[in-house]
Amino acid sequence: MLIKINQSDLIKSINIVIKAISTKTTLPILECIVIKTMENSIRLIANDMELGIETILSGEIIKEGSIALNSRLFSEIVRKLPNNLVEINTDDNYKATIKCGKSVFTISGQSIEEFPVLPQIEKIKSITLSQFSLKEMIRQTIFSISNNENMKVMTGELIEINNNNLRIIALDGHRISIRKIALKGEHENIKAVVPGKTLSEISKILSSEIADEVTIYFSNKHIVFEFSNTTVNSRLIDGEFYNVDQMISSDYETKININRRELLENMDSALPFITEKEKKPVILNITENNMNLSIKTTVGNMNTDMELVKEGKDILIGFNPVLIMDALKVVEDENIDIYLFNSKAPCFIKNKEESYLYIILPVNFNPEDI
Amino acid sequence: MLIKINQSDLIKSINIVIKAISTKTTLPILECIVIKTMENSIRLIANDMELGIETILSGEIIKEGSIALNSRLFSEIVRKLPNNLVEINTDDNYKATIKCGKSVFTISGQSIEEFPVLPQIEKIKSITLSQFSLKEMIRQTIFSISNNENMKVMTGELIEINNNNLRIIALDGHRISIRKIALKGEHENIKAVVPGKTLSEISKILSSEIADEVTIYFSNKHIVFEFSNTTVNSRLIDGEFYNVDQMISSDYETKININRRELLENMDSALPFITEKEKKPVILNITENNMNLSIKTTVGNMNTDMELVKEGKDILIGFNPVLIMDALKVVEDENIDIYLFNSKAPCFIKNKEESYLYIILPVNFNPEDI
Repeated sequence: MLIKINQSDLIKSINIVIKAISTKTTLPILECIVIKTMENSIRLIANDMELGIETILSGEIIKEGSIALNSRLFSEIVRKLPNNLVEINTDDNYKATIKCGKSVFTISGQSIEEFPVLPQIEKIKSITLSQFSLKEMIRQTIFSISNNENMKVMTGELIEINNNNLRIIALDGHRISIRKIALKGEHENIKAVVPGKTLSEISKILSSEIADEVTIYFSNKHIVFEFSNTTVNSRLIDGEFYNVDQMISSDYETKININRRELLENMDSALPFITEKEKKPVILNITENNMNLSIKTTVGNMNTDMELVKEGKDILIGFNPVLIMDALKVVEDENIDIYLFNSKAPCFIKNKEESYLYIILPVNFNPEDI
Repeated sequence: MLIKINQSDLIKSINIVIKAISTKTTLPILECIVIKTMENSIRLIANDMELGIETILSGEIIKEGSIALNSRLFSEIVRKLPNNLVEINTDDNYKATIKCGKSVFTISGQSIEEFPVLPQIEKIKSITLSQFSLKEMIRQTIFSISNNENMKVMTGELIEINNNNLRIIALDGHRISIRKIALKGEHENIKAVVPGKTLSEISKILSSEIADEVTIYFSNKHIVFEFSNTTVNSRLIDGEFYNVDQMISSDYETKININRRELLENMDSALPFITEKEKKPVILNITENNMNLSIKTTVGNMNTDMELVKEGKDILIGFNPVLIMDALKVVEDENIDIYLFNSKAPCFIKNKEESYLYIILPVNFNPEDI
């Protein structure tokens, strides 16, 4: 193989596919990036057997061919090159010579024979949306996935299409985070549980431009994201996702409207008082037009008040401040609505359209914690 | 004690003194910041028994007094407060109440009785220079100190005043880094070995303004830096510092003038080929108007050429690229002069005035490494 590529194009493409390089693998071939010429295009491919990424880049193909190069070494060399034309030349012994300006690098590669081919899926079920929307929906929910590998299904997010609405749902046993948007056109109902790692890596590659689109294809075992010149292919997680709709209710006993940033800052102020040993909640005492927030531990105590607009009953309820903060950090509204029932029932942070919905369980507390 | 301080002033002063909080201490009092009113001023003090910092801040003193507060807790609380007036009130049981806006925090403090007093030194020998110069001189040498605690004197830097010149010198057995400036006025000759930690912390506090000055006082056991509203007091390291002047020579067999950035980039390109197991040098082959750089390891090899201006003999010499890069990173000249003798002798990177001088030992190599 003999190809010529601009250094800036090459490093951009390496940065995309390298997200599918496993850091844990013992198979040297899975530590490699494959470079392959095909149908007059140059492709970079990486695959950790769960997540596979392929991207097409432009360049000059002087001689067709392919090679697998150690991703760490290859990316380090290319990253340090000046932004000039890079020539990659391979010989029959899988030795790769990388030339740029006056510099010549020689490294050993491997045949791509052993490299696992990305699974091809039937492109029947699909949706198309803006890359920006998908990136935002992931960012606004992914913090709620569980990292408990014993509950595999909770380490992923549910991507659900129902009545031409797309919902992305994450939950970890203490909270549920849901983002919803309306899709254009008519779509079959679909449910797919996508690994958290896939979504977090893909959100780093997706563009932030509303005009750039991504098409998502679904099969029983896989999900494929096609955007820009890149294809991301991921296994799905087997198993039944928790039915969140049984938790959702539009009833409430108390509804408050409150300044989001101020609430976030007050919850943050409580964190110095929480230690590994003493995970006490922040206690909210909601009365007419006022919310008192307090926390009391052996470290010390905090007490503050906030203005709010209240409908319904007074309520005294405790929360882990971190869970409330996680939701408040990703919402953009200046003021938010919180719906409450009683001190044992979860709160609902949501807007009228329910384009976002955060359900957070309260924490029990003792009278002496107040 | 009852005082009122602006949050922004308070957090700025906390960030200064907290640099003298030991992370390793088992004495709770050394984890504390002392707040003390004195002579109509408010002072924050921290002291890890090697390094002590005191800073004066403005605020309103309603009732005189003092308290020692856990630095982590106190700084976390203050950092999260809005930029408003902060009231700190202490009672006879060393309970501190911190109020800001609607928020009230209560934490337990300690009496300052057990807190070690900063040593007072006789202010006889001193020099004054711009804070910016001192900050730069530290930055341009401190990377060369040793972290080998068995060679205590090499974990510090020599501050030397000789013939009204100030030199700061660091060395680690592989290299020597020297920065020199002329002082204004007449000064006694002084030598003091200052702990690396003191210098690295102080360089974070020093201003980058040329007009801001710092005065340094010397005693046999201590050094004191006075600047802005802050006093930094440090123990000196006992022991004789290596006599670097016996290494310095103005002779050379080869002198080259070369582009600094290009050399830095080429040295950097060699790093991917160096592994923990195989620390091979970059080999420089300097001939008429050309320098060839190469490295060869089991990972692969690199080869490149650079233009230069040469005086004297051709030379073949190997260096650890990291040591060359460390020096090139802190020099600002576009082109630098490197002076060489033979493949066994150190190189000298210096300017004509010798305001900077980096002496770097070469690395032996085998003929098959070329």
